[in-house]
Amino acid sequence: MSTAVSPLAPNDVPDMPEIAGVRLATAAAGIRYKGRTDVLLAVMDKGTTVGGVFTKSKCPSAPVEWCRAKLKRGGSRGAFARALVVNSGNANAFTGKTGRQSTALTAQIAAKAVGCSVNDIFLASTGVIGEPLDATKFDGVLAEINETAAPGDWMSAARAIMTTDTFPKVATATVKLGKARVTINGMAKGAGMIMPDMATMLSFVFTDAPLSGAVLQSLLRSGVEDTFNAVTIDGDTSTSDTLLAFATGAAAANGAPKITRAGDPRLKAFTKAFNDVLANLSEQVARDGEGARKLVEVVVEGAATKASARKIAMSIANSPLVKTAIAGEDANWGRVVMAVGKAGEPANRDKLSISFNGIRVARSGARDPSYDEAEVSEAMKAPKIQIKVALGLGKGRDRVLTCDLTKEYVAINGDYRS
Amino acid sequence: MSTAVSPLAPNDVPDMPEIAGVRLATAAAGIRYKGRTDVLLAVMDKGTTVGGVFTKSKCPSAPVEWCRAKLKRGGSRGAFARALVVNSGNANAFTGKTGRQSTALTAQIAAKAVGCSVNDIFLASTGVIGEPLDATKFDGVLAEINETAAPGDWMSAARAIMTTDTFPKVATATVKLGKARVTINGMAKGAGMIMPDMATMLSFVFTDAPLSGAVLQSLLRSGVEDTFNAVTIDGDTSTSDTLLAFATGAAAANGAPKITRAGDPRLKAFTKAFNDVLANLSEQVARDGEGARKLVEVVVEGAATKASARKIAMSIANSPLVKTAIAGEDANWGRVVMAVGKAGEPANRDKLSISFNGIRVARSGARDPSYDEAEVSEAMKAPKIQIKVALGLGKGRDRVLTCDLTKEYVAINGDYRS
Repeated sequence: MSTAVSPLAPNDVPDMPEIAGVRLATAAAGIRYKGRTDVLLAVMDKGTTVGGVFTKSKCPSAPVEWCRAKLKRGGSRGAFARALVVNSGNANAFTGKTGRQSTALTAQIAAKAVGCSVNDIFLASTGVIGEPLDATKFDGVLAEINETAAPGDWMSAARAIMTTDTFPKVATATVKLGKARVTINGMAKGAGMIMPDMATMLSFVFTDAPLSGAVLQSLLRSGVEDTFNAVTIDGDTSTSDTLLAFATGAAAANGAPKITRAGDPRLKAFTKAFNDVLANLSEQVARDGEGARKLVEVVVEGAATKASARKIAMSIANSPLVKTAIAGEDANWGRVVMAVGKAGEPANRDKLSISFNGIRVARSGARDPSYDEAEVSEAMKAPKIQIKVALGLGKGRDRVLTCDLTKEYVAINGDYRS
Repeated sequence: MSTAVSPLAPNDVPDMPEIAGVRLATAAAGIRYKGRTDVLLAVMDKGTTVGGVFTKSKCPSAPVEWCRAKLKRGGSRGAFARALVVNSGNANAFTGKTGRQSTALTAQIAAKAVGCSVNDIFLASTGVIGEPLDATKFDGVLAEINETAAPGDWMSAARAIMTTDTFPKVATATVKLGKARVTINGMAKGAGMIMPDMATMLSFVFTDAPLSGAVLQSLLRSGVEDTFNAVTIDGDTSTSDTLLAFATGAAAANGAPKITRAGDPRLKAFTKAFNDVLANLSEQVARDGEGARKLVEVVVEGAATKASARKIAMSIANSPLVKTAIAGEDANWGRVVMAVGKAGEPANRDKLSISFNGIRVARSGARDPSYDEAEVSEAMKAPKIQIKVALGLGKGRDRVLTCDLTKEYVAINGDYRS
């Protein structure tokens, strides 16, 4: 398996500020990997609210079921959280009764370490599916690292949750809520098996803003639509996709108002910053698609509706023939037409226009007469490729991010377990 | 691009008998390739009936639109055909007005050569999308090869329509219709961009049985369901997928009864033989999937319905993660669970059982305790892999064929145009 960092990794890694009320610690529990950390413990102050969105898989992992149950338990009032435990190396998915026992045991160990109810523990696991997760490996480890947990080390946290990721993914934003500054920090891990809904396997966002669980839930539901749910790597949907958001409320001490209603106008700037963090993290997921050499942005406009534009964009973004063409630096718009055609959405072949990185190669259902092969070939060498399709039917527009499909993807996934 | 024959190519190539009333000829028209034939002319005797099924793409190729119009023209009485012209190298798809002019000109040239109406000409093209097809290249060529067209050379015909196929695909059957023997010959080309509906880009079936166009149409519609429509290579749907069937009726001279009603009980044996030819050809398409090293049969049973079983089987067969695992000879049933989960069909994780080549690796939603990694690893080395998923919900069962996803697929498709 390649260990080289994706050439699409961001050049600048942000300085991650502390979030009041959040402490982080990592450890090497020996779940699967050798010589690296594989467990993250995030400890939150009392009163921290939580929201979450999860995979739509009909066969979700045990931790996904655990988190869903805890959120449901919170009811309309919203749920609270005191700790998040994430392990890499084993997804605890399709592990039957053993899987449920593992989540229960992990939560017990964490609850004892932190000193709270198991109902305040949130869990996520990523890695191999179908292998039992030995939760006894957390025994001792969580209690020990709870002692050393500290506000600062977000990069180590992001690193502990990686599987085939080639770089840790973090993002941050600060914004005014009322008259107080509040902070939003996020981390994500992705790489393969990335497809709505959710797009990333695991992502966690923390803020010191005083938001109710219901508000967090609402922010997540609308925020993922054009961020995590608009990213696809290979069209495969994980059993484990999880995005959790935690709000400690510590900024209330600085005068930040408590927000308990989703539509509160004071949330406007916060919502934008929150969505920016989600967009940043989800783009990093696409930039670290397994074997990716090109970031691909698919823009569809002129569709009948936004939903129709999304389906067509996803059809293009998930087409192996389009993705291999991009890997070959080939502006193969014929394959884009194929992908438009197979989406099953309203499309009129003779009204289609297609551009690669701003160069129109096809219009009115045929090759653009002004299309210069040399110019386009040069443009296809760029690390970011935008495919824009104009359907000429209506006002529906959408945008999806993906990456190219390379031999390296096959190598990584043909050799993952061995 | 690799030119090695697929290791999954059938060992035995059938002797293809003549079909009375069908003459074949091929030529090198220089559409795209050098040093090989790229055009097939099949000339049929007067009175030959025709049926066809086509891609469901919303952006079909010009020849698909041509054939559909000619079939429609036949109305409920059915359409007739005097010639089929197929070229490889250029799909005449997404070529706008020029594309329609190319089909019209090709049909004119063929009609003049054969001496019939343009309405009796059927067309198919395969190859690059979006490049104008210069139909003037057929001028002279079709008239010349019409002179030399002869009943026998089915292999040359199958070879002329290949693109990235590594072997020509033919199948034949003889069967009694009434008291007369009738013959069914078929050819296909596939390789990539293979997904229902249709599953193959191009396939042509010929028989001397006296069947009306309506009967042929009915045979095709029901015959493709579990053959061509149950094969997928990469989930991509061609703009050009075409399956045409021609019946010369010449066997009437030997006493074969004329069949004009789809439900005619005398058709029973013929229908089976016809479906066998379709099944044989469609399996060959899977065996020649681009870069394929393994033939993969996905069997889903115990689903809520057959349609549900089909969706789940297709979700598994189209999953890049499942396909790369097979390429890596890894019995990664966790990814099979993932693909079941993402299908969106009724499934109960804790009732799932999964086998690879008859070895059960998972049952009741977890690893089978008797699962022996060494035994399964050995089994995964076979050239044909059966993935069987038992859902334990109902009586729905279905089967889909596909192949593995290898680096060679990426190489072929990342370098197709250059």
